[in-house]
Amino acid sequence: MSESIDLSLIQSNKCFGGTVYKYEHYSPSLKCRMRFNIFLPPNAPLDSTTKVPVLYFLSGLTCNEDNMITKAGAQRLLSEQGIALVTPDTSPRNTGIPGEDDIWSIGSGAGFYVDATTDKWKEHYQMYTYIVSELPELICSNFPINKEKSSVFGHSMGGHGAIMIALRNPGIVSAFAPICHPSECPVGTSAFEEYLGPNKSNWLDYDPTELASNYQSEHVNILIDQGSDDAFLKEGNLLPDHFVAAVENSKNYITLETHIQPGYDHSYWFVQTFINDHIDFHAKFLKS
Amino acid sequence: MSESIDLSLIQSNKCFGGTVYKYEHYSPSLKCRMRFNIFLPPNAPLDSTTKVPVLYFLSGLTCNEDNMITKAGAQRLLSEQGIALVTPDTSPRNTGIPGEDDIWSIGSGAGFYVDATTDKWKEHYQMYTYIVSELPELICSNFPINKEKSSVFGHSMGGHGAIMIALRNPGIVSAFAPICHPSECPVGTSAFEEYLGPNKSNWLDYDPTELASNYQSEHVNILIDQGSDDAFLKEGNLLPDHFVAAVENSKNYITLETHIQPGYDHSYWFVQTFINDHIDFHAKFLKS
Repeated sequence: MSESIDLSLIQSNKCFGGTVYKYEHYSPSLKCRMRFNIFLPPNAPLDSTTKVPVLYFLSGLTCNEDNMITKAGAQRLLSEQGIALVTPDTSPRNTGIPGEDDIWSIGSGAGFYVDATTDKWKEHYQMYTYIVSELPELICSNFPINKEKSSVFGHSMGGHGAIMIALRNPGIVSAFAPICHPSECPVGTSAFEEYLGPNKSNWLDYDPTELASNYQSEHVNILIDQGSDDAFLKEGNLLPDHFVAAVENSKNYITLETHIQPGYDHSYWFVQTFINDHIDFHAKFLKS
Repeated sequence: MSESIDLSLIQSNKCFGGTVYKYEHYSPSLKCRMRFNIFLPPNAPLDSTTKVPVLYFLSGLTCNEDNMITKAGAQRLLSEQGIALVTPDTSPRNTGIPGEDDIWSIGSGAGFYVDATTDKWKEHYQMYTYIVSELPELICSNFPINKEKSSVFGHSMGGHGAIMIALRNPGIVSAFAPICHPSECPVGTSAFEEYLGPNKSNWLDYDPTELASNYQSEHVNILIDQGSDDAFLKEGNLLPDHFVAAVENSKNYITLETHIQPGYDHSYWFVQTFINDHIDFHAKFLKS
């Protein structure tokens, strides 16, 4: 695999005794070159035989692989805990699809972690496959990562992605201000129609609230933090109340802890404030 | 004062129980509008009667008021310690001086914290006066800040600025990878010649190493962290050895603690790793 994907190191920077690496590679599922960052903690240098747990962080609309790892202040605690962090990009880039860069909530920076089925997007926009299969395989083949000890968290569109992925591939998950019910909110419906077509029955498998309302599989633990002064929340794009109600239907299978944080907004100022709570939440499972 | 400077709130975000505010104002000393961020910890909201200590962070070349407060991860510990943080911009902006945006190391983003004397720059580039006098007065007049409990730290060009200011206005100071001897390094000499003219005797008052070598005033405590793999260091732009030698001449008046950090570079990945050491260093004095 490593030859065809042409995994190339772009940059590396020592940080909290470990290293933040930026790589670029060709993605067979997305048919374009992609970038990601990986933080390896001090106990797992590149040539380590010790394998460490890993957290994948999925970012929100307009973000790329850099926003979270630059702004969230996660590395101090990850370094102490001996947990790696992978921050993928949020969509394919430079695919040549007409208008891919024109709308902030569709196309570049807005992959919504789905496998597109519409003619316009399906050749490249296979983000579900990239995040769930291709990238973890690449990571575990090339870095000292314990494949059995991984989980996912995310912010906003990436919070949607994280919860949706964890309900389809049961595991623990956490999210900051997730888009909980994309089938029912403005940014979600416009993106899903674009990527998945107008038939809403094809949206259900990508919708955290729809998945949660019928969930009857392995037990899933979910932590959500949501700021009360979040403009995206007030616009009706997050709908955490829909998700809480859906989980009520599945409470034998899902444990949900939701913290409403008074006065916080949708930004990384909010994410950085509560990032350690999320790392601790995952660490309990990843290190058990 | 507040009317003529037209202090305007641009943005505010709750963070670690306190708030990060971004303001814009007219600067009489720089004759242009300037921006800064101020983090007020939870124990000192805007209308607080309790006044808290403050740290000023001076950023490096090409930076603005956002780089450090976004990337350094300082707010967690500042919040716990009850210390405010001010991050000013690194130069005047949009002054109309020909070529002000053309060279990364001179003009916009590169004020070097000096009061320029050359005809081209002197009308606007009065950063020493802005940082030492105008801005602290504005801060103490408008925010719940204890004027007697303030100190300065900085990175690269801002490390130069911080140490230079602390040697001229004795106090405690710390720096990440400071430009220690601007009169003798490529980026420093080109900037000083531009702002202060070719006569090197006019540069001495703005040069940390020159100031330290003759220092005989109130005791100054200095903490420096320097990465060993810093490209700026290897290019001869930082010259910490010159500074250490100069302090040897003044060791009755200056206490210098220098940490060489193996494998770290010049970036904010380095700064964030050691930011808490610097906050603790200042807190000992600010809260005594």
